[in-house]
Amino acid sequence: MGNASAEKRYTPLVILALVGALVATLGFWARDRAAENQSSNHAAVGATGEHYQWKMITTWPKNFPGLGFAAENFSRAVEEMSNGRLTVHVYGAGEIVPALEVFDAVSQGVVDAGHGAAYYWKGKVPASVFFTSVPFGLNAQEMNGWLHYGGGLELWQEAYAPYNLVPMAGGSTGVQMAGWFNREINSIEDLKGLKMRIPGLAGEVFAAAGGTAVTIAGGELYTSMQTGVIDALEWVGPYNDKSLGFHEVAKYYYYPGWHEPGSILEFIVNKDSLEALPTDLQAIVKYASRAISQDMLDEYTARNNAALESLIEEGVKLRRLPDDVLLALWQGSQVVMQKLVASDPMAAKVYESYRKFYKGARNYHHISEQAYINSRDKALGDGDY
Amino acid sequence: MGNASAEKRYTPLVILALVGALVATLGFWARDRAAENQSSNHAAVGATGEHYQWKMITTWPKNFPGLGFAAENFSRAVEEMSNGRLTVHVYGAGEIVPALEVFDAVSQGVVDAGHGAAYYWKGKVPASVFFTSVPFGLNAQEMNGWLHYGGGLELWQEAYAPYNLVPMAGGSTGVQMAGWFNREINSIEDLKGLKMRIPGLAGEVFAAAGGTAVTIAGGELYTSMQTGVIDALEWVGPYNDKSLGFHEVAKYYYYPGWHEPGSILEFIVNKDSLEALPTDLQAIVKYASRAISQDMLDEYTARNNAALESLIEEGVKLRRLPDDVLLALWQGSQVVMQKLVASDPMAAKVYESYRKFYKGARNYHHISEQAYINSRDKALGDGDY
Repeated sequence: MGNASAEKRYTPLVILALVGALVATLGFWARDRAAENQSSNHAAVGATGEHYQWKMITTWPKNFPGLGFAAENFSRAVEEMSNGRLTVHVYGAGEIVPALEVFDAVSQGVVDAGHGAAYYWKGKVPASVFFTSVPFGLNAQEMNGWLHYGGGLELWQEAYAPYNLVPMAGGSTGVQMAGWFNREINSIEDLKGLKMRIPGLAGEVFAAAGGTAVTIAGGELYTSMQTGVIDALEWVGPYNDKSLGFHEVAKYYYYPGWHEPGSILEFIVNKDSLEALPTDLQAIVKYASRAISQDMLDEYTARNNAALESLIEEGVKLRRLPDDVLLALWQGSQVVMQKLVASDPMAAKVYESYRKFYKGARNYHHISEQAYINSRDKALGDGDY
Repeated sequence: MGNASAEKRYTPLVILALVGALVATLGFWARDRAAENQSSNHAAVGATGEHYQWKMITTWPKNFPGLGFAAENFSRAVEEMSNGRLTVHVYGAGEIVPALEVFDAVSQGVVDAGHGAAYYWKGKVPASVFFTSVPFGLNAQEMNGWLHYGGGLELWQEAYAPYNLVPMAGGSTGVQMAGWFNREINSIEDLKGLKMRIPGLAGEVFAAAGGTAVTIAGGELYTSMQTGVIDALEWVGPYNDKSLGFHEVAKYYYYPGWHEPGSILEFIVNKDSLEALPTDLQAIVKYASRAISQDMLDEYTARNNAALESLIEEGVKLRRLPDDVLLALWQGSQVVMQKLVASDPMAAKVYESYRKFYKGARNYHHISEQAYINSRDKALGDGDY
């Protein structure tokens, strides 16, 4: 066979040496990998399992101030914490599907996740309004308490389960402003015939109180106000509203935000996409959403006042809605709420939980936040800290 | 040598087969590892680099309700997200060092991290009081805004840098209660000679307003009140106070919590321990603390009212501090604050940032949270939602 003499060269020692060299090579390779892990944190990807790439669509344009930052912040948090094992590519409204098709696209697995607001899906899930904000409802701190320690999140999960969706809190604006008006509102009479862009449940309440509620997409608000198609509109608050230029087309800026007193945004994740992740990445998604949700409220809290001051400098007139208007809106909200609750068993179930929490939170507010802030005001008067 | 004939058995093909078998075995092993990664997420530890074990000490007993849960919640979050690559073992007060030595122990690297409250370190870092809560200061939402979008956290980092410590927000109690009293306070005259356990800056303010401030460790409060060593004490709020049984030794429960209107707890991490982590684990520590910090406020918001109601059922008398007492305390706090600011350049620097933020936040509160809550109350009256 021509290689008989060669056979004798391969002794057990040679084999051991070869095997040893192979083991040593593998050992060095492993050590190099470990060193790479220490320095760049990227080489680990191959060794720790699958690399997951998610698509997240939002109901806002990309990098939309305030509301629109959350998806990008979430993406960054997840990528940093997972060392790139889970990347989340964010697409603005219209890039993959239009804003109001986010729910369906995530539900059907067209994409893995979405960012928006639950009350946009009221037509499909009537109970969803409670997970964003309802007229005269809970404020931001109370909403977070209800969701995370009052049974709210579990009800939200139950409401979205039929759609193969897992919801998580995705930000908070705090109390919004009542909105922009082209004339002063001095009494309930001034609501008659007033055409206001105010969508959803709040729009129904506004109509019940005597106004005319109109639904117009965010992108058309400026022009609609400018051309007199509408007399009033609501959006979010100074930090957001200023960037959209509403002060150029409406003079009066009204408070308080009776219609959205503690709006919570949402992250929604397709259940299959979530469950396909290893448990550590699932935990990263969960904690990232929690941290980013709070981050938005912190940003609004810090930035609203400076924005308001600059609006006032530009001539905006700040006004409070008169008591009789607020009372009419409250009465309207009771009518609308009872209608909602009667129309849908899940909405009725969520309302019961919400209502019970509300009673306790409001009760405690009287001696905690509210009592403190009112006392602080009394003590300080017009003075500084 | 007895094995000459055996030498002939090792042909190149045999060697190739052996090497092939070894490679195949390693391949199967690698595949098994990958399969394990998919199922348990634990086998990855060895492959992804170092396994880090931290010790975290706290200023509370282990599993102390509310305040004490944060460290355990942080530990769980970090372990889940890191897939066990970073574990944080929590030690209660006294297990490694006494409660009030947490700062030094983490600073010196005796342990990696700590959980407590910044104002405990006022003797060492006078500016630290601003990072927990100061009399008549910011509430919880405002504190979070200042820390994360108003420059507060950067100042906190600057104040702790000389101690090789990195601070992070580690929870929030919301507005606290003014405390437990063994008699009614009807006017400023009733503060004279009143011995109250109220530590730190608030204690100085209480003394400036005419009372006698006493410092007593948490574990001795119940007995001190029972035996008449003190006439009054402050702790946190209903959810925490009830578990310590103060209603058994004091009848009157006063609000509002002028002395700690938005107390923020702290996580502190030894800088070397933090920087020894790969960047993904550093991010996990950062986002975990942020999520857990908010979680505590959510829990207090949800649980305080039920605790208060059960306290009232047990005979506790709920009372509001009279206006003249609150005014005297506010005037006292101005004196104490000016003294603090004059004594320490870093305290003066933090005060300037805090004061500027305070002005804007209070201004905006008037038309947002405060205006809304007061309007909600007016509309609802004694009714439910």
